[in-house]
Amino acid sequence: MHTTVEETNTTITAAQVAYGQARDVDPGTRAAWLRSIASALEANADELVGLGQQETHLDEGRLSFELKRSVFQLRLFADEVIRGEHLDATIDHADPSWGMGPRPDIRRVSVPLGVVGVFGASNFPFAFSVMGGDSASALAAGCAVVHKIHEGHLQLALRTGAIVEEALDAAGAPQGLFSTIIGRQAAECLVDHPLVKAIGFTGSTAGGRALFDQAARRPSPIPFYGELGSINPVFVTEAAWKLRRDEILAGFASSFTMGMGQFCTKPGLLFVPGNPAVPGEGEEDVAGILNREVEGKPRRPLLSGKLREGFDGALETVRSTPGVDVMVAGDDSEAPHPTVLTTTADRVREQPGILEQEMFGPASVVVEYQPGDDLTSLARMLEGQLTATVHAEPHEDVSDLLSTLRERAGRLLWNAWPTGVTVSYAQHHGGPYPATTATTTSVGTAAIGRFMRAVAYDSFPPSQMPAPLRDENPWGIRRRVDGVWELPNGEGKPNE
Amino acid sequence: MHTTVEETNTTITAAQVAYGQARDVDPGTRAAWLRSIASALEANADELVGLGQQETHLDEGRLSFELKRSVFQLRLFADEVIRGEHLDATIDHADPSWGMGPRPDIRRVSVPLGVVGVFGASNFPFAFSVMGGDSASALAAGCAVVHKIHEGHLQLALRTGAIVEEALDAAGAPQGLFSTIIGRQAAECLVDHPLVKAIGFTGSTAGGRALFDQAARRPSPIPFYGELGSINPVFVTEAAWKLRRDEILAGFASSFTMGMGQFCTKPGLLFVPGNPAVPGEGEEDVAGILNREVEGKPRRPLLSGKLREGFDGALETVRSTPGVDVMVAGDDSEAPHPTVLTTTADRVREQPGILEQEMFGPASVVVEYQPGDDLTSLARMLEGQLTATVHAEPHEDVSDLLSTLRERAGRLLWNAWPTGVTVSYAQHHGGPYPATTATTTSVGTAAIGRFMRAVAYDSFPPSQMPAPLRDENPWGIRRRVDGVWELPNGEGKPNE
Repeated sequence: MHTTVEETNTTITAAQVAYGQARDVDPGTRAAWLRSIASALEANADELVGLGQQETHLDEGRLSFELKRSVFQLRLFADEVIRGEHLDATIDHADPSWGMGPRPDIRRVSVPLGVVGVFGASNFPFAFSVMGGDSASALAAGCAVVHKIHEGHLQLALRTGAIVEEALDAAGAPQGLFSTIIGRQAAECLVDHPLVKAIGFTGSTAGGRALFDQAARRPSPIPFYGELGSINPVFVTEAAWKLRRDEILAGFASSFTMGMGQFCTKPGLLFVPGNPAVPGEGEEDVAGILNREVEGKPRRPLLSGKLREGFDGALETVRSTPGVDVMVAGDDSEAPHPTVLTTTADRVREQPGILEQEMFGPASVVVEYQPGDDLTSLARMLEGQLTATVHAEPHEDVSDLLSTLRERAGRLLWNAWPTGVTVSYAQHHGGPYPATTATTTSVGTAAIGRFMRAVAYDSFPPSQMPAPLRDENPWGIRRRVDGVWELPNGEGKPNE
Repeated sequence: MHTTVEETNTTITAAQVAYGQARDVDPGTRAAWLRSIASALEANADELVGLGQQETHLDEGRLSFELKRSVFQLRLFADEVIRGEHLDATIDHADPSWGMGPRPDIRRVSVPLGVVGVFGASNFPFAFSVMGGDSASALAAGCAVVHKIHEGHLQLALRTGAIVEEALDAAGAPQGLFSTIIGRQAAECLVDHPLVKAIGFTGSTAGGRALFDQAARRPSPIPFYGELGSINPVFVTEAAWKLRRDEILAGFASSFTMGMGQFCTKPGLLFVPGNPAVPGEGEEDVAGILNREVEGKPRRPLLSGKLREGFDGALETVRSTPGVDVMVAGDDSEAPHPTVLTTTADRVREQPGILEQEMFGPASVVVEYQPGDDLTSLARMLEGQLTATVHAEPHEDVSDLLSTLRERAGRLLWNAWPTGVTVSYAQHHGGPYPATTATTTSVGTAAIGRFMRAVAYDSFPPSQMPAPLRDENPWGIRRRVDGVWELPNGEGKPNE
C-alpha cells in the first residue's frame, strides 16, 4: 500500500512535467481548474462525509461544514487568481531622472515555485488535508502538488485524491498536476527530492521539526511551511472577570471542548483572577461552573489511538506537575470526559513547563493570578503561538499586554475565542516558532504567496514580456506602476 | 578590537529595548529617522569616501556613486514607510453572510520582527554594508539592527556606524536601535541569540551556508536572508550574434570587468555561436575583439588579499579544466589584467562543473555552441542565479529558453547587462539557491517585507486597534477593505 521510492520519484517527475505545462496558463484557466475541484467535492459530499465519519470519529455536521469550508476556499482562491493579487505585478518604466541615476525599464511578477509537497493533518480531514489550505494555495499559485496522505483517514484521502484528479482532468489540466503518496519512506523522498521546491505541513511539533531540519539540510534548502503546536493562551482582566465571569467560563468551556479539543487553536491556558474568598451563599465557584458547562458537551473518541496516547501522556505530564490540581476530572473512557487543571501564577513562574506543554485533546489549564499581578510578565514567559486572546473592557489600558502577546502570536483576539478560523483576505494563521516554522499564514488568500517567488524582467521589449507585465494589462489585474497603484475595471474606493 | 560575547549580548539586549520603544512609532517619525541617516551620510560623504579609498582599492567615482545610491535608498524607503505599503493593511469587516459561515471582524497588519542581525559584504562598502540595503530595509520595517562589520573596510565601517548612531540620536530614535559588532565570535553569538529574529547576509556561498545552517539549527529557527553566489549566464542567439557581435562583445567586456569583476551580478558565462571558419581578411575574431576591448579597462588591486587568493584559486580551477583554453590572458600583477577563458558547449556538457565555479574577480568564460545547438538544454544545466541574460532579436521565439532561465534566476535581462542593480519598486535581487537562501529580494522597496510578519486582530473594538487598522485610516495608507483596495489621498489611476 505504501508508495515506494521509485513510485514517488515517478510521481514527482510527472508533477514537474505537469507544472511546466501549467505554470503559464491565464488566470481564467487556472481559476476554472480550482472551481472544477470545488464542484466535484461538492457533488461527492455525501460519500466523502460518510467516509470521514467511518475513519475519524468526527460527526456529520462538523465534517459537512469542513467540506463546505474547503469548497468555499477553492472558489475564493479562484476569484483571487482572476484578480491577480498574488502576482504582485509591479512596473517601473525606464526613468532617466531616477534619483540614483538612470533607471532601466524593470518589471516584476511573482511566479510559481514548482512542485510542492503537502503533508495532510489528521484533525481536519478536509480543511488541512488532501484538498485543504496548503494544496489549494499551491495550486492557485500555479504549482503542482504531491500530497502525502495522513493514514488516519486513508480511504477518505484516497477517494478525495481521486475526485481531485478527475476534476482536474475534466477541466483540461495536465495529468500529474495533483497526486498523492502514502507512507514515511515516500514522505522522506518527497522532502529530499531536488524537483520539490517547498513543503506545506500541518502536524506535531516533533514531526514537523524533523522534516524542517531535513528540508534545511538539503544541498538546495527549500522553504518548509510548517504549522506545528500552539497552546493559545487567554488572559482575563480583573474588570472583565468581575463583569462577565460566568459568560467567559461558558465560552471557554465551549471553545476548549469543541471538536474534542483537537484544534490547533484550542485555548489551553486561561489566566483569571484568583478567588480571594469562598463564594457567597448560592454563588457558584469556578470549578462548579466549569463542571456544569463541560458536562453537557458532546463526547466522541479522539481521532486515533495514537493521538489518544499522546493526549493521555501530555495530560499526565501537566497533571503531575507539583502545584497543579484537578478542577474538572476527566476519565479514561473511549470518549473521554474533558479535564480542567488548575494552578496559580506563582506556581507557573516556578514551573514554566506548564506553559509549554500542548495537550492535544479535551483539556485545558486555568491559571489563577493574584489581584494586581502583572499579566504582561506572565505573557513574556510564553513561546510562539498561533493565537492569544484578551478578555477585557473596551477602555482598559492593556497595551503592554497586547504588545507582548503580539510578539508571540499570529492572531490576537478580543473578547472572543480562538477556535474557528475564517478563510478571508485578512486572515493570518501563523505565529512565531514553535507555532510555525515561517512568518507566513496557512489560511486565507495570503497563503497563496508562500508558493511563489518574484522574477524581475529588465529591459524587455513588449513582444517578449509575460502578459501580466505588458503595458496594456491584458489580464486586467491590479498593478503598481511607477510607484502608484493602478486598479483594473474601475475597482477601488479613493479615500479622500 | 573584536567584540566579546559579553559585549555582544549587551548590545543585543539594548537593541531589544530600543526595538520595544520604536516598533509602534507613526510612519512620519520612522521616516524622519531614515532621512536623518541619509542626510548625515551625505554631509560626511567626503570623509567616508576617503576612508573607502584607503581601505578598498575602489576609486572615488565608484565610491561616491555607491554612497549616493545608499542615501537615495534610505529616502525611497522613508517615502515607502509614509505610504505604508509594507504594512499590507487588510480589513475584513464582520460579515454574517460570508460564504463559509458568519465572519468575525478581522484585520491584518504587518509588524516588525524584532532585532535583526546584518552581515556586511566587502565588495560594496556602502550599498551592502553598514547602512546598505539590509540595514535600511530592517530599520524601515521597524526592527532594531545589530550590524556585523566586514573587516575589509573596518575604519570606514566604524565611522559609518558612528555617523548612523549619531543621526538616529539627533532625530530622537531610541539609543541602541542601530549598533555594530566586530569579529567571528560576536557573529556566531548574533546568529544564535534568542532575541535575534532574522539575519541579512551578503557574502560567499561557503560562509553564507554555514550561517544558514546555524540559523536553521537554533532551538527557534529564524529566517536567514543570504545572498551567496551567482555566475550570471548570458545567452546570445545566432541572429543577435550575426547582427551585433562586436557590440555584444564590447558590452560583455565592460560588464565583466566593471569594479574589477567584484560584483555578484558579474556575467561569468557568455554563450555564443562558435566561429565555424577563420575570420575573413581584415575581420577581427572574438579573441581579437575581447583582447582589444579589455585592454583599455582601468585596473586596480582586488578588494583584499584574501579575496585575491580566492579569485586566483577559482580561476585556476576553471582554467585547468580539460577543454578550457585561454582567450584573453590575465596576469599575476597586483592589479591583474582580466582573463577570458573559452570552451565549447559540448565540453561543458561533459564538465558541468565549469557552470558552477564562480570566479569573483575580472574573469569570465566564453562558451561556443554549434549552430542549431539547443540553448535550453544548456540553460537546464545551470544552478540558481541572481540574473540570467538573453541577447536576441525582438521577434525570435526564445520562450523555452526564457522559461528555463526564469526557473533558475531572479532577474532576467534582454539585450542588457546584469551589472548595476537599480533600487526601485519593481526590482528583484534574489534567485534560487545557491544565489540566495530565500525567495525574497535584498534590493528595492520589496526588501522591507523580509523583516516583518503579519498579525491578525480578531474582533477588536476601535479603541484597542492599532492605528493602521482603524476604519478612519489615521495614517492615510493604502489598504484592502473587504477584498477591495482603497487608495488614500486620491492616489491611483483607475484603468477602465
